[in-house]
Amino acid sequence: MATQLVVDIHTHVYPPSYLAMLRARKTVPYVHDPAEGEPRLIILSSDDDPATPLDQRGRPVDTSYSDINVKLAFMEKHGIHCSVISLANPWLDFVPSPEAQQWAERINNDLDSTCAQVNQTSDPEGTKSATEKQTLFAFGALPLSAPSSVVVEEIKRLSTLPNIRGVIMGTSGLGKGLDDPALDAIWKALEETQLLLFLHPHYGLPDEAFGGPEAVSRYGHVLPLALGFPLETTIAVTRMLLSGVFDRFQELRVLLAHSGGTLPFLAGRIESCIMHERKFVVNGGDEPGPQRSIWDVLQTNIYLDAVIYGSAGLQAAVAAGSHDRLMFGTDHPFFPPLQDEDEKWPSVTTNYKAIRSCFGEEKADSIGMVLGSNANRVLKLGLE
Amino acid sequence: MATQLVVDIHTHVYPPSYLAMLRARKTVPYVHDPAEGEPRLIILSSDDDPATPLDQRGRPVDTSYSDINVKLAFMEKHGIHCSVISLANPWLDFVPSPEAQQWAERINNDLDSTCAQVNQTSDPEGTKSATEKQTLFAFGALPLSAPSSVVVEEIKRLSTLPNIRGVIMGTSGLGKGLDDPALDAIWKALEETQLLLFLHPHYGLPDEAFGGPEAVSRYGHVLPLALGFPLETTIAVTRMLLSGVFDRFQELRVLLAHSGGTLPFLAGRIESCIMHERKFVVNGGDEPGPQRSIWDVLQTNIYLDAVIYGSAGLQAAVAAGSHDRLMFGTDHPFFPPLQDEDEKWPSVTTNYKAIRSCFGEEKADSIGMVLGSNANRVLKLGLE
Repeated sequence: MATQLVVDIHTHVYPPSYLAMLRARKTVPYVHDPAEGEPRLIILSSDDDPATPLDQRGRPVDTSYSDINVKLAFMEKHGIHCSVISLANPWLDFVPSPEAQQWAERINNDLDSTCAQVNQTSDPEGTKSATEKQTLFAFGALPLSAPSSVVVEEIKRLSTLPNIRGVIMGTSGLGKGLDDPALDAIWKALEETQLLLFLHPHYGLPDEAFGGPEAVSRYGHVLPLALGFPLETTIAVTRMLLSGVFDRFQELRVLLAHSGGTLPFLAGRIESCIMHERKFVVNGGDEPGPQRSIWDVLQTNIYLDAVIYGSAGLQAAVAAGSHDRLMFGTDHPFFPPLQDEDEKWPSVTTNYKAIRSCFGEEKADSIGMVLGSNANRVLKLGLE
Repeated sequence: MATQLVVDIHTHVYPPSYLAMLRARKTVPYVHDPAEGEPRLIILSSDDDPATPLDQRGRPVDTSYSDINVKLAFMEKHGIHCSVISLANPWLDFVPSPEAQQWAERINNDLDSTCAQVNQTSDPEGTKSATEKQTLFAFGALPLSAPSSVVVEEIKRLSTLPNIRGVIMGTSGLGKGLDDPALDAIWKALEETQLLLFLHPHYGLPDEAFGGPEAVSRYGHVLPLALGFPLETTIAVTRMLLSGVFDRFQELRVLLAHSGGTLPFLAGRIESCIMHERKFVVNGGDEPGPQRSIWDVLQTNIYLDAVIYGSAGLQAAVAAGSHDRLMFGTDHPFFPPLQDEDEKWPSVTTNYKAIRSCFGEEKADSIGMVLGSNANRVLKLGLE
């Protein structure tokens, strides 16, 4: 039996130049170098709790964040043949224009050339099969603080770089969320280039949603990461839907992080609330409201990663979208093992296990699609 | 073939006395009587937008909210044999002590005697089968602003009322959320009486989570109801779990509204984040962290309603819990049809359809369990 192709479409990097920029900062996001021990990465506002000593804030940042060889070793250990790397949050959201434009070009060129080097080194003759070598592709970063025309130009440029297959974006857009009509030029450029938009959370929810800063702090990262992140994604994509983004840009393709946040589970409730909303024209109100069904959007425009750590969630993701729109991911280098650094990462094996148990032996084809062939097709990776 | 028993465990009432109390108020929650047309019910803070004319705020409130005969007609129309009615949000959360204690007793006695009257009228001889008559039970309300000892006494009293099968509660607890250790006496009383705790959202999320009041207002109730409500429930029950409530009260039984908010979908991610949290003792930190697995809690302590409006979400609910822990509900009198008032309510038929399509013909037994027999067993309704 041929080895099953495995593609990781949710895996992040902080290029050394980006980390250097963070190291020069003193407010979130920043890197702090303690007198002893590993540097600390403080990227979430909840990381920057003044009650926590500076040397203990955030999380330790080791070479897995920036050294591509560490990524390649991680891939080898976990049976991953191809990774589609993306800049980790918060991308360039905090970088003012015009620096953002320069940083986007620099990082995107870095990503593309890193992929090119790895691909060349791994298969110098171009003769190996996809499962005999290591292959990298990348999602680019956008300079969202720059004028729209600059962002559009960068999208067009990205579509010409050989190893770029999409862009990664947070939920703030130009600062007003993803239902901002000022984003239309960007949606249009993504639609025209058919670059996949990887929509990823970063900002979570206000502390008040969790009962205030003390309630959040008591449980470390659990509330912001386990709930804040997926809820942020759900809110962002729902606002896109409600404002008609998917009506105006019916060819826009969006990959939602963490299996859509909670979108597959809540899609029915969202649809029902739309049908019952007196404010929308169809019910006699003044607001247009979305024209297309959420189920149609889930099965036409939206792709989901399989980073959900359980077959219960995965079943909803399959049912709401389809087994051919779901793609394996790891979220590397986040969620490393805390106990035994040499073991396979439980955060990765849990997702492998969930995929296998969701489909079972009678649907083995679907397992292969989720693990690799969907990504190969959707992102036109050309892996054989 | 015998008629399938259908029990609605998520169906609300505002007794006339409660509506009178709301009518006397001018701040949320309140009832406003416009010069023309139906009274308006303004219960959510997002309903009370000063930019909306007072006569148009909130939602129209008709007799379906307070007239039990309207509820019985609704049941008849939708093939529901038994309803377990509960006070609608925000219950007595806003009522100060000692009035709260008086209101709880009054409302709980009202609910119990309404059930008794309906049950007596529907089957005066006590000879009809469960599917030939209409039966009511109720979840009681708690005076949470009163001292704990008073709340505990009310719980004990509720357990002696013949038609009460549990209590309904919001997510604020005593004002500090459901991970507040001051709630332990209440959890203990619920555990000892084996009254089911129906955990229901009301407060949603801060407007900022949705991009501010303007972003919320643009889409009417959609963001607060479709996302705010289920996310609130998810946060509340996760805080219970993280603080060890289910470790200390292993016999506590909790029914989560709206199929758990998003808990079934996110359970895997929550569990993974707990396993990776450096703050918890198991990982070398200072906080105890939860001792039991979330999957164990989902299959031991938690019950879910089937109010999720789609089979995708329902599949996750079944996989995370079990088909014998899921119970049909309608959320009546909310989400009435906006177009044709005589038709069956789409909000109800959507849930019926989701249950049938989730299980299919080969699992017809599971359909019957979800529609009625689970509720009959779990709540000891004695319907035959």
